[in-house]
Amino acid sequence: MAIESFGTEQAARKLRLGMVGGGRGAFIGAVHRMAARLDDKWEIVAGALSADPENAKASGADLGLDPDRAYTSWQDMVKGESNREDGIDAVSIVTPNHLHFDVSKAFLEAGINVICDKPMTVTFAESQELVRIADASGVQFVLTQNNTGYPLVRQARAMVADGTLGDIQVIRTSYVQDWLTTALDAEGQKQAAWRTDPKLAGAGGSIGDIGVHAFNLAAFISGLELEEVCADLRSYVPGRQLDDNANVLLRYKGGATGTLWTSQVAPGNYNRLSIGIYGTKGGLEWVGEDNDNLYYTPFGEPTRTITRGGPGAMDVANAGTRMPPRHPEGYIEGFGNIYSNAAEMIWAAKEGRDPDPFATDLPTVRDGATGLAFIEACVQSSNEGAVWQKVAKAG
Amino acid sequence: MAIESFGTEQAARKLRLGMVGGGRGAFIGAVHRMAARLDDKWEIVAGALSADPENAKASGADLGLDPDRAYTSWQDMVKGESNREDGIDAVSIVTPNHLHFDVSKAFLEAGINVICDKPMTVTFAESQELVRIADASGVQFVLTQNNTGYPLVRQARAMVADGTLGDIQVIRTSYVQDWLTTALDAEGQKQAAWRTDPKLAGAGGSIGDIGVHAFNLAAFISGLELEEVCADLRSYVPGRQLDDNANVLLRYKGGATGTLWTSQVAPGNYNRLSIGIYGTKGGLEWVGEDNDNLYYTPFGEPTRTITRGGPGAMDVANAGTRMPPRHPEGYIEGFGNIYSNAAEMIWAAKEGRDPDPFATDLPTVRDGATGLAFIEACVQSSNEGAVWQKVAKAG
Amino acid sequence: MAIESFGTEQAARKLRLGMVGGGRGAFIGAVHRMAARLDDKWEIVAGALSADPENAKASGADLGLDPDRAYTSWQDMVKGESNREDGIDAVSIVTPNHLHFDVSKAFLEAGINVICDKPMTVTFAESQELVRIADASGVQFVLTQNNTGYPLVRQARAMVADGTLGDIQVIRTSYVQDWLTTALDAEGQKQAAWRTDPKLAGAGGSIGDIGVHAFNLAAFISGLELEEVCADLRSYVPGRQLDDNANVLLRYKGGATGTLWTSQVAPGNYNRLSIGIYGTKGGLEWVGEDNDNLYYTPFGEPTRTITRGGPGAMDVANAGTRMPPRHPEGYIEGFGNIYSNAAEMIWAAKEGRDPDPFATDLPTVRDGATGLAFIEACVQSSNEGAVWQKVAKAG
Amino acid sequence: MAIESFGTEQAARKLRLGMVGGGRGAFIGAVHRMAARLDDKWEIVAGALSADPENAKASGADLGLDPDRAYTSWQDMVKGESNREDGIDAVSIVTPNHLHFDVSKAFLEAGINVICDKPMTVTFAESQELVRIADASGVQFVLTQNNTGYPLVRQARAMVADGTLGDIQVIRTSYVQDWLTTALDAEGQKQAAWRTDPKLAGAGGSIGDIGVHAFNLAAFISGLELEEVCADLRSYVPGRQLDDNANVLLRYKGGATGTLWTSQVAPGNYNRLSIGIYGTKGGLEWVGEDNDNLYYTPFGEPTRTITRGGPGAMDVANAGTRMPPRHPEGYIEGFGNIYSNAAEMIWAAKEGRDPDPFATDLPTVRDGATGLAFIEACVQSSNEGAVWQKVAKAG
Repeated sequence: MAIESFGTEQAARKLRLGMVGGGRGAFIGAVHRMAARLDDKWEIVAGALSADPENAKASGADLGLDPDRAYTSWQDMVKGESNREDGIDAVSIVTPNHLHFDVSKAFLEAGINVICDKPMTVTFAESQELVRIADASGVQFVLTQNNTGYPLVRQARAMVADGTLGDIQVIRTSYVQDWLTTALDAEGQKQAAWRTDPKLAGAGGSIGDIGVHAFNLAAFISGLELEEVCADLRSYVPGRQLDDNANVLLRYKGGATGTLWTSQVAPGNYNRLSIGIYGTKGGLEWVGEDNDNLYYTPFGEPTRTITRGGPGAMDVANAGTRMPPRHPEGYIEGFGNIYSNAAEMIWAAKEGRDPDPFATDLPTVRDGATGLAFIEACVQSSNEGAVWQKVAKAG
Repeated sequence: MAIESFGTEQAARKLRLGMVGGGRGAFIGAVHRMAARLDDKWEIVAGALSADPENAKASGADLGLDPDRAYTSWQDMVKGESNREDGIDAVSIVTPNHLHFDVSKAFLEAGINVICDKPMTVTFAESQELVRIADASGVQFVLTQNNTGYPLVRQARAMVADGTLGDIQVIRTSYVQDWLTTALDAEGQKQAAWRTDPKLAGAGGSIGDIGVHAFNLAAFISGLELEEVCADLRSYVPGRQLDDNANVLLRYKGGATGTLWTSQVAPGNYNRLSIGIYGTKGGLEWVGEDNDNLYYTPFGEPTRTITRGGPGAMDVANAGTRMPPRHPEGYIEGFGNIYSNAAEMIWAAKEGRDPDPFATDLPTVRDGATGLAFIEACVQSSNEGAVWQKVAKAG
Repeated sequence: MAIESFGTEQAARKLRLGMVGGGRGAFIGAVHRMAARLDDKWEIVAGALSADPENAKASGADLGLDPDRAYTSWQDMVKGESNREDGIDAVSIVTPNHLHFDVSKAFLEAGINVICDKPMTVTFAESQELVRIADASGVQFVLTQNNTGYPLVRQARAMVADGTLGDIQVIRTSYVQDWLTTALDAEGQKQAAWRTDPKLAGAGGSIGDIGVHAFNLAAFISGLELEEVCADLRSYVPGRQLDDNANVLLRYKGGATGTLWTSQVAPGNYNRLSIGIYGTKGGLEWVGEDNDNLYYTPFGEPTRTITRGGPGAMDVANAGTRMPPRHPEGYIEGFGNIYSNAAEMIWAAKEGRDPDPFATDLPTVRDGATGLAFIEACVQSSNEGAVWQKVAKAG
Repeated sequence: MAIESFGTEQAARKLRLGMVGGGRGAFIGAVHRMAARLDDKWEIVAGALSADPENAKASGADLGLDPDRAYTSWQDMVKGESNREDGIDAVSIVTPNHLHFDVSKAFLEAGINVICDKPMTVTFAESQELVRIADASGVQFVLTQNNTGYPLVRQARAMVADGTLGDIQVIRTSYVQDWLTTALDAEGQKQAAWRTDPKLAGAGGSIGDIGVHAFNLAAFISGLELEEVCADLRSYVPGRQLDDNANVLLRYKGGATGTLWTSQVAPGNYNRLSIGIYGTKGGLEWVGEDNDNLYYTPFGEPTRTITRGGPGAMDVANAGTRMPPRHPEGYIEGFGNIYSNAAEMIWAAKEGRDPDPFATDLPTVRDGATGLAFIEACVQSSNEGAVWQKVAKAG
């Protein structure tokens, strides 16, 4: 493998980005900003970074925002940015989950492209409404189910789609953490507190916070529609309001079945996301911790290790590759692909042209709705004793 | 780690072993024989090695048996060995599953110790009868759920038992193969044919052949009683009579939950047995392919790699260790521990003394019955649409 | 491990960065730019991006540079930027090796901070002169031996320094690739061509291009001074002018010894950088491909896996950490730490204050000179038949 | 991969084995016995198990030997067994190194086949004499460089031999332990004491005890003749008489070069033996701790994981395979292949027929002599300051 010119940088022009949430003390906002900066396609120019006005101002200053554009409410920001000639091209929504709907709605209705963190809304019903709003808006809605930005996850999807694995029969996926093994939430740790509060996080705990990533990963790679779940959700830490562990059986349209496990109480696991997907002709395995490798077994032949940027990497993977093989890329780089692709989609729309085909496969508002359908089906299945529950179809 | 004298060899005397099944063309019989020979505690002196008389004779000659003791039926063998002064001390039963019950019964009733392959019987009802027969027999019944012979599996059990992990909350286990991805059974491959024939193998396909190993591994390490399962069994290869993939939810007495996945149609997996077990104070992970390491995480501390024979290995593990750390041991060595421990149990009984405590933790007739209860509960759960099914308690 | 606020972003103000080299078709320039952008501490405002004026202009436009600051020669850039009120705070030098000296000298003498790619110069003599120039300049000279930016490499250095390993006795390090297994250079592949041309790359091929990274990694972690080398350099591809494989014995001051292997002709290796360092009390192992883990063995205890951001990670590692554990970080993130630390050093100097102590341990002009001393010693050792050769001390 | 009948068992008849050394308190003798028993081709019937008569008798009883054949000196054993009608077919020599020569000589001259542990003798001169004696004896001399018994090591050799890798250019090998990090030898630990005593072990410490395994592995796989070494041997523990760490450069006939590192003072390593071998067309990597996998990269294609017993395993590997893929085999199994192949060679000689071709590639007396030549060249190279030293050619 020769070292050639990798990478997606092409920066002569930048889109203007705003952000709702993500002020001091937040976590995911900073990740979005690093992802947005990586390929130099975005400039952050506005924000409603905190519900606390003082924090909002201070956080705006941290980011070097024009003080006029460091809004103290997202409502002001919608208005302010809509009225400017140089208003933002897109807004990143990185608030706790319960605000995603209102904020998304407002910006979409103002004709501003939206990049929204997951889970998309707190309820499936809201998500369905958002589908209609997004469809009507005529602008982009991109959901940061960021694992779909990993180059080899995209290759896995392509390999399934082109029939390399034959018919998919079996899927195993999991996302496992340990940080809620103790009662961090009761101790007031900020990240733990909102993620375990149904008013802020929605009905799902681990299933909504991380299980939905595993669901989405399986859906993205397999291209299959999930029809039914049987989910046994538990909250192992006394007093915790939402599940911290979920064991789920999956049934896909067409006959594939699977298991999904998510946990926040599995000591020794920090962010272990993994998937195995098996068809009549071969199998694929991928682990987020080792994102630069994809393990592919054509049935009856030795397993191949396909390394990002190396032999066997497909164009769809190389399109999102910045570094030569085994100079590791990671979470921010995969997330950065979502932002760079979103930029391309917005430019293409502005310019009335077809976007780069490798930029088009972004998680959509429908994927968000599907995620909510999955979460709600799991919660309802579990509430009824872990019985089979149909997964609602996103409109 | 100094190289010291490892190993369990102490061979001045040998017990006499017979074998039912395991003739030419069989697989597991040869494994039992290698395991029995490893520590030189057994001598194979008799056999009813095949239902085909010619094969039985030829196979006996292969093993150097006295032709008088190369029986052409197991019934003859029971009689013949019972009548000899130097009759066998124990019999290994390595036939297809459907014969386990009758053969075990006959030898137990003849007062001959039994070492029986898994699954113990074809039905739970039979297994319960065998419990009573074994209890009444006054001799040993050892079930070769051989994974319990791995030194670090035994250490894992000891660590759970001594409270190192706190209260166990979550278990994930799986046993995955790919050899039945195509219709080998329909093509007449011998191993595939009997394992997918309900008359020979029982009601479970993958769940009975390999899923029961994952179940047993979880039970052995956790010490927990499985109360309920919800199992979705599938047979993906057209025409196959038994399941080749099973997705199972687990509920243990006391509140722990888990998932169990078994498959014979997952390309790239040959014999991937693994478990993760997580409690309030820590987690353990073990993979059969990497049996010489146990990964232990005390919550909030870095993961420790405990290597067989190395620092952190406990006496219970060292007792079954023959080689210094990282001179790999494997399947035969773990299996050999079952045989060497069985010999010790039999000697201790002969001599009216307590056995070496490290030899006592062998899989019993009750473990066999529990395995059948598990298999039947899974099959019944699945047959009713994958609903929760109580696991019968072994008497 | 709770998800808390990680990361080094703090962006209210940005330094102005220029770049020499790194235009269209170049590789490492884009890496520097991504690294510089990651934490938002730099803005790229000027460049002499190519020796070819047309490419220089076009590449400047790619980066959105003011056309006046897209210089067609680095000499013009020194002049132009020196004369501006808003001239660059620092220059990144990412040209082929043979230009590093002249360009560094010119910017240093103009009082502009320099961030220079490795190897620092083409000869040790030049490097010594650059030491004097940098010392006299009063500005920062930062060498992008970027592996020193990985959080766990910094932790390894800290663990050695605080005596955790006892006295270091043995070091093993290697950096292995395969991209020059065939005669890419002869086929005119641009990256291959200059890296194998002694006029552009200097006297070392693999030893200068990648071996110096392994040397530097060992020096950075161990803190030991290399006294002697015995190096056997080979050029396996017919017609190649510089070495593509080097086997080196190392002797450090104080008695530690080691081996260093570097290769560009080892199929299956893309960028495999690794080190093991062993002392009287313990050992450390780290592999670049798996940069988020550090394997630490206190002698006589089980190996600990220390994960970036997780339990056991020290403050010095956490200071350069952006993501929670097992959301992988990689090459760009480690490189980004060099850029963010450099920014802090420059701001501290501007403000007449002490810098953040975690920002101070950057590779210096003396490290660059030490690298050249290593390369030249290896080349000379090999030229004389692979005999022991003293490594010159950098002034 | 279907489960079929694996394994090399075929036991109708057994050869008679004697053993010199290997009594109570010894280590490697027990390993030889397990290896010999595994496939049931040997019966241990005689021994001179210890130089201490009491231990010799007691150890003989442990093994169930006829007391007449539990000799108190190997000289008696040569005589006693030579005079018996049912005398041993072969003797295993598992004493400390300094006795290998005399004992081998005596048994060879008595026309008894010899299986001798490594290193074969204490000096190269002795080894050369043994070559002549063995050649003249007309019986088998098998050296237990046991790593050559691993199925995938044999496959690696076959892949090099058939040109799969092209011309071999680069080799990297190492064998690393940590058990001598402290002064165990000074504390009287038996294994440590003799292995660091030049009178018992010979001139090499780590280089003779384990380095020779790495050398042998490289020679076996590559088929290349080592011409020169440059070795820097150190004894890091004060007072230790022999080297505990060795850094070695290698030059092979035909132009390949390499590095060999061996250490007994590298905390965290128990028995880490590994090799990488790279040619013009591809590379192979193998690690003893993971002996059931071989990593093969055809240049420019993804790396293949070839698993013992699985797809891509060659006949030469399958011939030494007992278990299906990923039921792990290990050290004893590989060692067992040496014993089973030795049995086949002896039977074939007895019967005047050609042996099974897969049994013929055993380490010979010449390989033993080559090992001594390597050890002596390393010691002499190091003694002269780590200069290049020709490796003597074994006659």
